[in-house]
Amino acid sequence: MSGSSFGSIFRITTWGESHGPGIGVVIDGCPAGLSISEEDIQKYLDRRKPGQSKYTTKRNESDQVEILSGVFEGKTTGTPISLMVRSQDQRPKDYGNLASIFRPGHADYTFTEKYGFRDYRGGGRSSGRETIGRTAAGAVASLLLKELNIHVCAYTKSIGPFTIDEKDYRMSEIRENALYMPGNAVAEQAGEYISSLMAENDSCGGVIECIASGLPTGLGEPVFDKLDALLAHAVMSIGAVKGVEIGDGFAAAASTGSTNNDPFVTANGTVCKQTNHSGGVLGGMSDGSALILRAAIKPTSSIAKPQQTVNTSGEDMQISIHGRHDPVIVPRAVVVVEAMTAITLADLLLQNMSANMTHIKKIYET
Amino acid sequence: MSGSSFGSIFRITTWGESHGPGIGVVIDGCPAGLSISEEDIQKYLDRRKPGQSKYTTKRNESDQVEILSGVFEGKTTGTPISLMVRSQDQRPKDYGNLASIFRPGHADYTFTEKYGFRDYRGGGRSSGRETIGRTAAGAVASLLLKELNIHVCAYTKSIGPFTIDEKDYRMSEIRENALYMPGNAVAEQAGEYISSLMAENDSCGGVIECIASGLPTGLGEPVFDKLDALLAHAVMSIGAVKGVEIGDGFAAAASTGSTNNDPFVTANGTVCKQTNHSGGVLGGMSDGSALILRAAIKPTSSIAKPQQTVNTSGEDMQISIHGRHDPVIVPRAVVVVEAMTAITLADLLLQNMSANMTHIKKIYET
Amino acid sequence: MSGSSFGSIFRITTWGESHGPGIGVVIDGCPAGLSISEEDIQKYLDRRKPGQSKYTTKRNESDQVEILSGVFEGKTTGTPISLMVRSQDQRPKDYGNLASIFRPGHADYTFTEKYGFRDYRGGGRSSGRETIGRTAAGAVASLLLKELNIHVCAYTKSIGPFTIDEKDYRMSEIRENALYMPGNAVAEQAGEYISSLMAENDSCGGVIECIASGLPTGLGEPVFDKLDALLAHAVMSIGAVKGVEIGDGFAAAASTGSTNNDPFVTANGTVCKQTNHSGGVLGGMSDGSALILRAAIKPTSSIAKPQQTVNTSGEDMQISIHGRHDPVIVPRAVVVVEAMTAITLADLLLQNMSANMTHIKKIYET
Amino acid sequence: MSGSSFGSIFRITTWGESHGPGIGVVIDGCPAGLSISEEDIQKYLDRRKPGQSKYTTKRNESDQVEILSGVFEGKTTGTPISLMVRSQDQRPKDYGNLASIFRPGHADYTFTEKYGFRDYRGGGRSSGRETIGRTAAGAVASLLLKELNIHVCAYTKSIGPFTIDEKDYRMSEIRENALYMPGNAVAEQAGEYISSLMAENDSCGGVIECIASGLPTGLGEPVFDKLDALLAHAVMSIGAVKGVEIGDGFAAAASTGSTNNDPFVTANGTVCKQTNHSGGVLGGMSDGSALILRAAIKPTSSIAKPQQTVNTSGEDMQISIHGRHDPVIVPRAVVVVEAMTAITLADLLLQNMSANMTHIKKIYET
Repeated sequence: MSGSSFGSIFRITTWGESHGPGIGVVIDGCPAGLSISEEDIQKYLDRRKPGQSKYTTKRNESDQVEILSGVFEGKTTGTPISLMVRSQDQRPKDYGNLASIFRPGHADYTFTEKYGFRDYRGGGRSSGRETIGRTAAGAVASLLLKELNIHVCAYTKSIGPFTIDEKDYRMSEIRENALYMPGNAVAEQAGEYISSLMAENDSCGGVIECIASGLPTGLGEPVFDKLDALLAHAVMSIGAVKGVEIGDGFAAAASTGSTNNDPFVTANGTVCKQTNHSGGVLGGMSDGSALILRAAIKPTSSIAKPQQTVNTSGEDMQISIHGRHDPVIVPRAVVVVEAMTAITLADLLLQNMSANMTHIKKIYET
Repeated sequence: MSGSSFGSIFRITTWGESHGPGIGVVIDGCPAGLSISEEDIQKYLDRRKPGQSKYTTKRNESDQVEILSGVFEGKTTGTPISLMVRSQDQRPKDYGNLASIFRPGHADYTFTEKYGFRDYRGGGRSSGRETIGRTAAGAVASLLLKELNIHVCAYTKSIGPFTIDEKDYRMSEIRENALYMPGNAVAEQAGEYISSLMAENDSCGGVIECIASGLPTGLGEPVFDKLDALLAHAVMSIGAVKGVEIGDGFAAAASTGSTNNDPFVTANGTVCKQTNHSGGVLGGMSDGSALILRAAIKPTSSIAKPQQTVNTSGEDMQISIHGRHDPVIVPRAVVVVEAMTAITLADLLLQNMSANMTHIKKIYET
Repeated sequence: MSGSSFGSIFRITTWGESHGPGIGVVIDGCPAGLSISEEDIQKYLDRRKPGQSKYTTKRNESDQVEILSGVFEGKTTGTPISLMVRSQDQRPKDYGNLASIFRPGHADYTFTEKYGFRDYRGGGRSSGRETIGRTAAGAVASLLLKELNIHVCAYTKSIGPFTIDEKDYRMSEIRENALYMPGNAVAEQAGEYISSLMAENDSCGGVIECIASGLPTGLGEPVFDKLDALLAHAVMSIGAVKGVEIGDGFAAAASTGSTNNDPFVTANGTVCKQTNHSGGVLGGMSDGSALILRAAIKPTSSIAKPQQTVNTSGEDMQISIHGRHDPVIVPRAVVVVEAMTAITLADLLLQNMSANMTHIKKIYET
Repeated sequence: MSGSSFGSIFRITTWGESHGPGIGVVIDGCPAGLSISEEDIQKYLDRRKPGQSKYTTKRNESDQVEILSGVFEGKTTGTPISLMVRSQDQRPKDYGNLASIFRPGHADYTFTEKYGFRDYRGGGRSSGRETIGRTAAGAVASLLLKELNIHVCAYTKSIGPFTIDEKDYRMSEIRENALYMPGNAVAEQAGEYISSLMAENDSCGGVIECIASGLPTGLGEPVFDKLDALLAHAVMSIGAVKGVEIGDGFAAAASTGSTNNDPFVTANGTVCKQTNHSGGVLGGMSDGSALILRAAIKPTSSIAKPQQTVNTSGEDMQISIHGRHDPVIVPRAVVVVEAMTAITLADLLLQNMSANMTHIKKIYET
């Protein structure tokens, strides 16, 4: 069935395979009159493109985006925005030997079982390159949010066992290290850990955290399209994500009501919360505090270390996966988590417009 | 916007407030020819109804379900199945004093901000009673799955700090203790912990685990409607859930590729996995192993312990919430997690039918 | 698949069979703060209920509506509005003899082929009683539109060969005759025609016209959810409708560009159209003129005149359908066409809110 | 809101403006294993491309399609199929003088009112070039249908007052005349009529008919996604369509039940209908007879004859539209109506797969 779209009003549809002619996204439902340019979108794509550091794949792709529709004289027109990145460094032949093997941790087996066969070139549709479309759409969503003073920021909270505690965050350092961690010192230790794994032909994972500030209260549509539910859907749909939590998340399960509840207080005449265990979500709607979510990223599945597996003829065998693979995908996934969060927020912002008659009369009463 | 529906083909729409005339659900897209009865559905509702033990609210509701449409001579007809539970023990007056107060941890504040006012009787739409519709629909989904030998089972993995390790599970004991834990001994300790919190006018949370076996390989629709993404959406949309993980979940983030990858092996001529760190999901599709997910449930927000809060006039004040509240909602939420999982699986099972031309020719070629 | 819902933001889901316990609808996405009551909705249901005149079935149903959720203290709360009508005059036994026969012009054969069997009691889901849910939802949509000074009005333009020309309309007479025609004199002739057909055990059809005034310019979402496209979907989904046209409709196909184009002119400083061949729709969006649509209704399929048919055992046979059937369903379908039009307009009114950044800043900028 | 997608399982999303870099479509939900090539798709695009005859615009576009994703080794993979046509003969400057004028019969005014401004180059998104995406997607849908021996065929039934009666159809002549009429003689007369209008700087419209044969019984999802309702939506969403009818359509409204009902009879042991007034649809589902629909196409709005209009400054003025316009769009719209019909049928074919447990067990029982 059609599973390549996400969102209800601000709705994205992605397409493209790792070694096909290109990768793209169509954004439908973006309001007219938003200023966007290819440069704006390129900044986001550059944060996920390969070759940024020694921890990322050497595949040589500049990932230049082209706006094909929906923008006229620098502004969105309200019609669908089609964005495309042409592939450059396609090496499908690198993958010929993988055509008949199910790589552990990958989607080779499940794709084959579902569809009867698969595009085996670099993982085809299940490749990390699929996230180019998400990232480009996230750039547009972020521009929309910025117009309303909403800011979304993701970063690496942990790499393998190396984690940074909230109290130690140095947010200004996020873009200063190759791992996008809010702390250069921990990032250096984590980098050494990655290097040691690379030497062993192994890989690791980590945790990405994303915060959003400036949200109006009340975003989220009870009961199934709650803010946290849609965010969980959005983030869990990114390949390699194995868990999502909001606010205190799993730690809340071990807490007590008197500790976990955030007291309401007034400050400068407005209602706010004294703490933020809820991570900015109450009853599935934004509660005025910062939104906080975390995503658990599994270790890169492609490793050179020999692994036990089976081929398409049903024979047991060993496999060592060589090629241009990231030893950890967390740093490049940071902007993808940020993008999916921005897309979800933009959509819910538009969905919330029809929540009550007061809003409606603001638009239509003359 | 319309956020009260979930699913694409097997699609449910729930309605109802805590102290309104009733609560219900419409299930659309259920295939014709499935045997269902009110008794079948009642069994699921009885697992979440109040008054089951000393750890659950004393509100007196038998929660009797009525089938209003879509079933003829004991079988589904393919038309929408409307299910309703009439309220009995409505005491809206109990809540008059809460009309002007924002309870910490509840949706009072966010509902008011979004919609301009709220039905304050027992939380209105944000009450736990909203899950009656989900549970009834989950019963129907489970019956559909059973026809195909797919079985879904949820239970309490932990209550506050009391948790059961997978190696110690005694699955036969799940229905033997009031907490629905796979281990009566730990359940007893957890029960004492809950009692001690009740004495302190406090509450706690826990973790629910759900497994599904018998799934065909390939369920899940890349790239946004992946099996894990839809499950995260489904389960996170349940009130009080703050985190969802699949397989090793957050633990995978601290693992390495060589450990976390599940080797493929052949057994009796079929491909299977030697381990199940993936929790039964690869590339967003079921991989033939058991599906495993966990949900973090926050502590009950309604506590008698005094809390700081604000009223609708913007005045700071203290609140003690008395009434008929569960000290922990985990045990009653077990069947809700199971229901949402079953609904998601039933929907994806139907979505997967059109995955390839082989399937299509099986249906249409004569 | 789930086909019982209509609308994107203002979204309705109907349920119920002719001789089941009841018929109902869930309206999701209705904005909070709209005043509605059971009396408001009842007025619409009374316009379609049986027994209004000698031209309508004698089935005795008062069709009393009950609001089950979504309304608190006389106002919508933003949560789903569940409406139900309990059946009273169920006579399933009247239909036992039809269980094994495919009635010509009815859905008996197609339901059986699709689902494997059918609820044969009074047509089950394909009965005209299914429109109760649509009508009740249309009442709510109409109340929403009225708040914005948008008015929708349907009436009978023709019964069999008896038609009223636009220049002869007497709109004040619509509610004065049993056929809801804008002209009592033609209605009387049409009534005699119906009586003559009743004497011959035959039936007839007609054309319903619906106009909507007060629409803001720009409703409709290019390119697939255009105003006219959604209206065609909405109206064609009503049983017995075989054609839909907008403005000059099929007559436009025989016209020329110079005649059919509506010139723009200014009047009191605003742009308007000098004529309205377009029926209020240009490029799939409302153009500021009155919206005009027409629906062709086929003759009632249930007739007492003997007809050739086949039974479920594949035997050729004759059938004479006796019972409580309308000789023409047009008069009772008038309010259903009006309801579906109102639902479509309400939905597009909400969809249009996010069309441009100016709208968005009106809601969110502080 | 997002209105650029159509279909539920077989779902298309179109993008592109008349004078932008290109036009395209993403087809999601197409089953894996269907053989398709660019040549297959090109055949459909060639039937709508400009410059085919003296009755079509002289704009020079070869409309070459490129498959960007979703096809591997000649077969669909189950992932989204992205198709693009690059623009060649863009002359945005031709339209500079139209930037500030609302052309009668066009979407200039409504686009401006809805979105605040518009891409005025050749109508932007409301151009007929938008149908390239629909046509390309229709080619893929048609290939899917052909695999199941379902055939869809559209043609011109009338041009202005020149119409062909069903009994006079010569289907083999459809591709022999520039107007795609099933009768060369009438086509010639109609051609002279068009020439005479061209001499007067005027334009005309017509009626397109589409038939589909080989459909299994039971396609269509009651009650809102009925076969006829979705077809009406699909076809009315094509620019310039002002009416849609099924079977006898508006003529049925003037008929009687005894005439309009199609008797069921047995033939070679199977049930079939003796006549086909219903146009192949009963109760919103395919009934085993040929599907028949008609679409009314209005006259081309762009005419050189002077017309009264208003500019964006609100000044009354006259306009004569010169440029490369079709005097009648009916011939080029034939393949578009066929495409939208094929898309709707393909989607309903997939939707119908989960109608009953018998189907489901055919797929999943081992």
